[in-house]
Formats: sequence, C-alpha cells, structure tokens
Amino acid sequence: MSSTLFPQHVIARKRDGHALTREEIAAFVRGATDGSWADYQLSAMLMAIFLRGMTAEETAVYTEAMMRSGFVADLSNVKQPKADKHSTGGVGDKISLHLAPMIAACGVAVPMISGRGLGHTGGTLDKLESIPGFRVNLSFAEYRAQVEKIGLCLIGQTAELAPADKKLYALRDVTGTVECVPLICASILSKKLAEGTDVLVGDVKFGRGAFMKNRADARRLAEALVTVATAMGTPMRAVLTAMDEPLGRAVGNALEVAESIECLKGHGPADTMEVTFALGEQMLLLAKAAESKDEARGKLERAIASGAALGKFREMIAAQGGDARVVDEPGRLPQAKLKVPLVAPHGGWVRDVDAMGVALAALRLGAGRAKAEDRIDHAVGVSGLVKIGERVEAGAPLCVIHASDEKSLAEARARLEGAIEVGETLRAAAKLVDEIVG
Amino acid sequence: MSSTLFPQHVIARKRDGHALTREEIAAFVRGATDGSWADYQLSAMLMAIFLRGMTAEETAVYTEAMMRSGFVADLSNVKQPKADKHSTGGVGDKISLHLAPMIAACGVAVPMISGRGLGHTGGTLDKLESIPGFRVNLSFAEYRAQVEKIGLCLIGQTAELAPADKKLYALRDVTGTVECVPLICASILSKKLAEGTDVLVGDVKFGRGAFMKNRADARRLAEALVTVATAMGTPMRAVLTAMDEPLGRAVGNALEVAESIECLKGHGPADTMEVTFALGEQMLLLAKAAESKDEARGKLERAIASGAALGKFREMIAAQGGDARVVDEPGRLPQAKLKVPLVAPHGGWVRDVDAMGVALAALRLGAGRAKAEDRIDHAVGVSGLVKIGERVEAGAPLCVIHASDEKSLAEARARLEGAIEVGETLRAAAKLVDEIVG
Repeated sequence: MSSTLFPQHVIARKRDGHALTREEIAAFVRGATDGSWADYQLSAMLMAIFLRGMTAEETAVYTEAMMRSGFVADLSNVKQPKADKHSTGGVGDKISLHLAPMIAACGVAVPMISGRGLGHTGGTLDKLESIPGFRVNLSFAEYRAQVEKIGLCLIGQTAELAPADKKLYALRDVTGTVECVPLICASILSKKLAEGTDVLVGDVKFGRGAFMKNRADARRLAEALVTVATAMGTPMRAVLTAMDEPLGRAVGNALEVAESIECLKGHGPADTMEVTFALGEQMLLLAKAAESKDEARGKLERAIASGAALGKFREMIAAQGGDARVVDEPGRLPQAKLKVPLVAPHGGWVRDVDAMGVALAALRLGAGRAKAEDRIDHAVGVSGLVKIGERVEAGAPLCVIHASDEKSLAEARARLEGAIEVGETLRAAAKLVDEIVG
Repeated sequence: MSSTLFPQHVIARKRDGHALTREEIAAFVRGATDGSWADYQLSAMLMAIFLRGMTAEETAVYTEAMMRSGFVADLSNVKQPKADKHSTGGVGDKISLHLAPMIAACGVAVPMISGRGLGHTGGTLDKLESIPGFRVNLSFAEYRAQVEKIGLCLIGQTAELAPADKKLYALRDVTGTVECVPLICASILSKKLAEGTDVLVGDVKFGRGAFMKNRADARRLAEALVTVATAMGTPMRAVLTAMDEPLGRAVGNALEVAESIECLKGHGPADTMEVTFALGEQMLLLAKAAESKDEARGKLERAIASGAALGKFREMIAAQGGDARVVDEPGRLPQAKLKVPLVAPHGGWVRDVDAMGVALAALRLGAGRAKAEDRIDHAVGVSGLVKIGERVEAGAPLCVIHASDEKSLAEARARLEGAIEVGETLRAAAKLVDEIVG
C-alpha cells in the first residue's frame, strides 16, 4: 500500500466531501477483500459515503472494482445474445422463474446468478429449490456449459463472486448504512455484471412491500443502475413497478413455482403478466432480438402459446437435476399439512391487500428467513389471494393459508385479517408499471 | 440492551441528523466500554457524529457518560479549593511543570492527571520522568493523600479513567474522525473532570504547531469545552493562545524541565511567562483565591519571588520519589552525548521559527514518539532557541542541538535550518494570548 493511501487518509477525503480517485477507491475495495483495512475503517468509510454521496463516475469505478474483487464469468462460448433481469425484491415476485425460459425460448440466452431471500422478500433460489432435486449450486463450468447448451441456467452466488460486496454488505446491515443509492447500486451490479450477461433489465420496485418505500428513491436508484451499467459496457434499462399489494395470487416457495408454471401455460394472473411482459420486452429490445415493443411482445406471447417457454423450463429443471414432472403434476411439489381458507366476513370490494402484511404472514408460516441461518419450509404460504378492486361475497375465500401447524396458522391468519380490507366502495389498484428508465 | 436500542438503529438516528437521547448516548458509550457494540459500529457512529455534529446538550450528556464509564475521583478529603489546567498541546509547552507548584503555593490545590506525548507534541508525564526516580504511576490512594498533604500531585492516566474514551480515541485515530469538536471536547473533559478538580482552565492553542491549525476552530473548541464543563458543574474558562513558534527556548524533556525550573526562579522566557500568568490568573480567579486579575498576578509573582513555588516543586518531586536536587543542580538531569550549536549563516532579524519544524527535529532526535510504543530519550532536544523578532549576528548560535548520535544530529540540523529564517527586515511575533473564553 502506498504511504499516501493510509485508510484514514482515504476516509478523510470522502468525509470532507471530495470525489475519490480511482486509486483511492481501489485501495478501499482491496482493503475489504484482503483484510488490509480493518472492519472499523470500512464502516467509517461506508458512513462517509452514505452522508457525502458519490458522483456517477465514482459509483462506476467503485462498482467495477467491487466486481473485479472476485470471479468474473467469461461466457464467450455462448453464441446467442445474452440478457438477464434483476429485481430489487418484492412480495410474490416469482417473475424470474417463468420469464427466464420465455426469453430463452425467444433465442436469447439467460445466464442468471441469483440470491436467496432475506427478510420479507423471497429469493428465486429458494423457490427453485422447492422443486424436488433441483440443484442451484452448479460449478461455473457446469453453468457455462448449460447456458451454451440450452440457453438458460439459474444458479446461486458463490463465495468467489464479488467478495468485497459480501464483506461490505454484511457490515452495512449492522452499521446503519444500507439505504444509500451508490452503495446499493454497486452491490447489485458488482454481482450481476460478473455473471457474463450482455444486457440487463432492472425491476426497481417501490411501495409498502418494496425495499424502496417511495417512488423518488426508486427512481434515483434506477437511474444510477442504468448509468453505471451502461458506463461499464452493459446496456441496461430499468422498469419502475409498484409494490403495494403482492404480485400475483401466491406467496410462498412451492406455491409461487406452481403459479409460474400457470404463467408459462398462459393462465398467469394479469398483474404478474403485465410486469413479466414489460421486463421481457426490454430484454428482447436490448438484446436486439426485437425491433419494437410490439414485436417483442408478440414473440413472448408466441413462446407461451407454442409451449416453447414451458419446454425450456422443463429442460432447465432436468438439466439441473430437478423433477420436471412438476410441470404437469404440480401435486409433486411440497404440500403443506394444513390448507385452510380465510373467508370474507362480509361482502364488498377488496380495497387493500397490504404486501408487507402478507409477507409477514408468510414469514411466520416459515416461507422465509428472518435471519440468514433460518431454514425455509418450501410448502407453506398463501395462495388464491384476492386482488385490489375485486368483488367478494360474504363467506367466499380471500385466500388459502398453507401451514405446517395450528400455531403458525393462527398467527398468519391474524396477520392476513389485518392485511386484507373489504369495504363498501370500489378502489382501483394503482398503476403497476410506472416508467421505463434508460 | 433494549430492543429499541440496537446499535444500527442508534447509528441511523445520528446519521439522519437527529439529536440523540440520553438513553441512546448511554447505549453508545456503554457499547464502547463493555464491547456490546462492535468496533465497526462504534466507528460508523463516530463518522456520523463527525458529519452530523452534536448539540451542546448532547455533547454534555456524552461527556458525562464517557467520564462515568470509569473511575471518578472523590477528593472531598482536600479542604482547599482545587484547580487544574489542560493544554490542547503545543511545541515546548512545559507550563504545567511550573504553573502547578505556583498555584499550589497560592493555597489552591492542583490535582493533575496528565497524558503522554504523541506525535509532534510532548507530554507532561514524559518531561517529569526525565527527573531521576520520579514516579507518575501512583495509586489513586497515594494521589489523594498527596493532594491533601502538599496540595499538589501530578500523575498519569490509568486504565480505570474513562475507558470508553480510551477505546474511542484509538478508533478515531485510524478512521479519520479525530478533528471533531464534540468528540475532542468529550475526550478531554471526560478524563479531566474525573480527576476531582473544582475548576478548570483550558489552554486552547491554534497555529502551525498546534492541533487546531486555525483560530476559528480553536475558538469553537474552547466554547464547547467551557459550555460543557460548566454544564457538568465545573466552572471553566479557556485561554486562546497562538502556537506558531515554540513556547520558550527549549524543546525536549529534560531541557524543558530545566527551563521550567528557570521559570520558578524568576528567569523564565517572556513568552512562556506571559502564557503562564494568563492561565494562572484564571485558575486563581475561578477558584476564588483572588478577586481580580491584578490580585491574582500579584500572588503568582510573589509565589516565585518568595521561593514558595520552587519549594512546592521540590516537595512534589520528593513526594513522588524523584531526585529534588535537580532543582539546584540541573546537571543531574539526563545529558545528551552531543551538544552542538546551530549558527546563523548571516546576521539579521529572526523572521521565523516554525514550531512544527522544530518539533519534527526533536522527534528525530528521539525526544518524542511517532507511535505510542516508541521509547523516548529524555536528554535530547533543542535549547537556547532564538525567538521571532530577535537580532542575531553572523556565526552566533540560533540554538543548541542535543543529540545522542551524529546521524540524528545531522537530520535534526537539516530540519532546524529549514525551520529558522533570518532575514533583512524586522518581523514582530504575533500576539500570544489572544482571548479569554468564558
């Protein structure tokens, strides 16, 4: 380390509001990777960045340094264009499960490295693992070969991927430095851009059930993501979507897989398909597999109607060791012991389904993790959820609760009763796809 | 720990610019003391405080919590009023050595717990330890008894004194969170107010050779110190003094003890005595041992002229195991092997003596510590320094260098040649005692 790059001097530069140089950022990221900066120096720097911000250029340099702190995939063996999507996380967000095979069926490869769920939002890996036998921990060689062979692979993050982010992410969680656009942006892109995709589409969610509670913050993050990814040579657009009620009618791992299979069969819930098409259109456009939104939409719809997308999903399950029969026989997915409807106490209009309330009910049932080391019950959750703006009669089901025992059932029921509101007057759902950024 | 006081939540409150509650500050300080906050959480909080600041009330609550994190001395056995002084540190600042016995000779007890030198400024303890046999590590019971018996004791900080500050001070040094008024204020007062004094006078220095480089920062610190100490029930005033050239004509441990003895004999350098009287007057006024500055000044001058102050100094040395004969035979103090004058290359006016340059020369000779674990050579340093505004002839000494070997002598000489400027035109020294705050 150069004598001019003592950690405390680099920290003091950011503390005093200066833009850091490439060398200073490199020293910080190297310090997080090899331990040459102490944890207390990293966290002081994170707080200085939180309060002083980073320019677009600093954020790009920082993101690239984070990405290069670990393994960066080379997928030059794959001849097709490659596209991926990333969601900032929402309740009931199973879109990756069916969108990836839809895109692959349109001739664009999807190399997807994904995370596990933590807190109130589920993770794509956890959902896939509810398919009996499905392996998410492929080696990089297997991943590379599968993307080349079937145009589709969905695996988990390894320790070699952006280790600097792993270190800093854990520190941010316990030092009050999570909600900071440049830090979030670098954390997302350092991992996503290491997976080898050519283009990227972001689903940046805002609302009660999202990480970003308000639209303005979400839009700032979307712009930062698009600017930085593009500066790093990966064309990107971001779709701003509302997350006030859950996406679709199912929340819980196996229940969401079942719903994704319905989407692939052409029976997906309207809201889920609206977001699916919005994201898929941008993926095909950026990958130059379509020249207009209409053309892209047509290709995606045909991939479903022809069964090609469902076929890709089957192929992927089989290639990753899973039981592909779940596609035709969803009863082979894990089933909860108790399946109990929650009924409407009186008739009326569904005026609210609070995504956070539903998420906390699912968490209580065992569908998610409060802490990283918690185990997940793949069978439990909520299905058949009503949507805002629907009409229900007294005694009709508002949803079905899938539970493993009476205690968690009762607690989840109380949460759901508080989350779902039925009233006298019609309330329309908010606009779901808000804006395309980039 | 209450569930509402998770470290990351308290950190986030300060990060967002809120004033912390008494409970939140208590949690932070307790976390630093008992390890219930991780170092990376403490440093994130320090950076948030650095950038968001603290109100006067927060600073007072924080300082008191820091003080109460350890031992707080009870000197109710001492019947006299008790006064102490604290200097923020300067080059050649030996004032505590002779001011403490001067004050004691005026009937006001001086219970002084002091620190060691680090970096470019020397420490009172290191200077005292150049007196053969002098012990600074008395037990608290010995300290208490000596203050009662002779009205004067000068010891070192123990591990029991403000342990939260010890922890946070070490972290601040390596996380770029040193130069922050509320943090500095709490660090100084948490230790000083634990020693049992009734009143306190601060010597807050500004300039090239000081911790605070500019007057405005020093004044802000002085105001914070006075406000917080007073709020905690200890009347305080602060004297703002310039630190551009060294104080007095000697820099180095034994050399400064010899100069302090000269001060007690009535032969002190004019600048040193000007600051000494300014601080001493305020100590006697606050302790109600004098009703006016003139009365206080008269008492202090008589304490020197009568030999009473020198007598108190002898008593203190003897009480703490030192060889009191050094007072009359300064040759008993450690002597350097080499004593070499630096001579003026040409005649003229002394236009500059850069305190920092002299300090770095002394550090190179071995008089101070670059790191906390470095050993000190008590004999080395610089004596007979010329002062700004004095006239020198070609070939006359600008100072005498006291060194242990030729290599450090040559390096110190180069530093000193760069620090002392002799020119054609007269330049008057800047005003030394700038303002009394409080």
